[in-house]
Amino acid sequence: MRQFVVIGHEVPTTPDFPLADLPGGAGRMDLLARSITAALLRSHGLRADVRFRLVLGDAFTLRFEGQELQGLNPDERSTAARVRSALEQREGAIGHQAIETSPGIYLSRRGVEAALRDVAEEGTLLQLHEDGTPIVEHAPPADPVFVLSDHRDFTDEEQALLEELGAERVSLGPDAIHADHAISVVHNYLDTGGYERY
Amino acid sequence: MRQFVVIGHEVPTTPDFPLADLPGGAGRMDLLARSITAALLRSHGLRADVRFRLVLGDAFTLRFEGQELQGLNPDERSTAARVRSALEQREGAIGHQAIETSPGIYLSRRGVEAALRDVAEEGTLLQLHEDGTPIVEHAPPADPVFVLSDHRDFTDEEQALLEELGAERVSLGPDAIHADHAISVVHNYLDTGGYERY
Repeated sequence: MRQFVVIGHEVPTTPDFPLADLPGGAGRMDLLARSITAALLRSHGLRADVRFRLVLGDAFTLRFEGQELQGLNPDERSTAARVRSALEQREGAIGHQAIETSPGIYLSRRGVEAALRDVAEEGTLLQLHEDGTPIVEHAPPADPVFVLSDHRDFTDEEQALLEELGAERVSLGPDAIHADHAISVVHNYLDTGGYERY
Repeated sequence: MRQFVVIGHEVPTTPDFPLADLPGGAGRMDLLARSITAALLRSHGLRADVRFRLVLGDAFTLRFEGQELQGLNPDERSTAARVRSALEQREGAIGHQAIETSPGIYLSRRGVEAALRDVAEEGTLLQLHEDGTPIVEHAPPADPVFVLSDHRDFTDEEQALLEELGAERVSLGPDAIHADHAISVVHNYLDTGGYERY
């Protein structure tokens, strides 16, 4: 299974954000929505072998299961509406118990630290970072978990935690690219066995 | 220079489309807007070495010059608004004369055939197609022009014209992916010199 975790630093944790102003009024929800669809969609359908987590600051984690999702559309607005719908149901997420807010989408009260500790138990952490080792230089682990930040850098606390959890820093190229574009590149790298070229 | 051409088959050719329903009411303008930003944006600014053409069926071509663009934001809605604004000024595009509808964006009355003949004079055509030769198998030309279709396949007429113009079919991987995701992959391939791995 391929996993992605995107940490949203300014993303809303309540559902009162405007779908007509995703970049400004919704904490760069445009970028986060594109990251969700880049991770989960092929041209003709879902990527069933993908699990995606959107971490909403220190408050919530929204987990998308590629194998269970239904009707995810590729546009930003309808994807952001799924996030908003999940947040409308946030009272149902109690303790560590996740609530399924629409088919294949689970909301839980897991902030950054809890989410990263969860994924560290599920796979091998790879932090996408422009200063990392070029991704093509070695074969990926069997169970990669790619951790990305949104438009902001990882905080010092996040960086320290990633190091504690043994995350390796890998880079995709010479320049920083948007998180959603990076996810497309990672998929291609894995789809084509790019690592076998060495 | 890197060039991209995306052919929009159902895209509006008048500005009366809704920004709140880009997938349905605006002919998959969501996908086209994402393609524009995937081609032209890095994480921190514009890709100055890129020219992007959006072909609006048989009616217009909208050309984006990376070196001249100003204030292009990464979200679908504001990018679609740029397209809409261009179409509002369509009466100013007369004959073969392009009109600059906002900084670095040029609208002209060039349909699919005219646009493809234009780019064939500017560079070497590469048609992105899942049945093509794997892109990693040879070095790219110095002046690549990647031609993509939107959510629809190329028509028979477009296919015949691409063959006439000597376009080579190249594939990025085993499965069809969305046009915007393909553009991100192409950029990474060129950014990292992926072709030099052979």
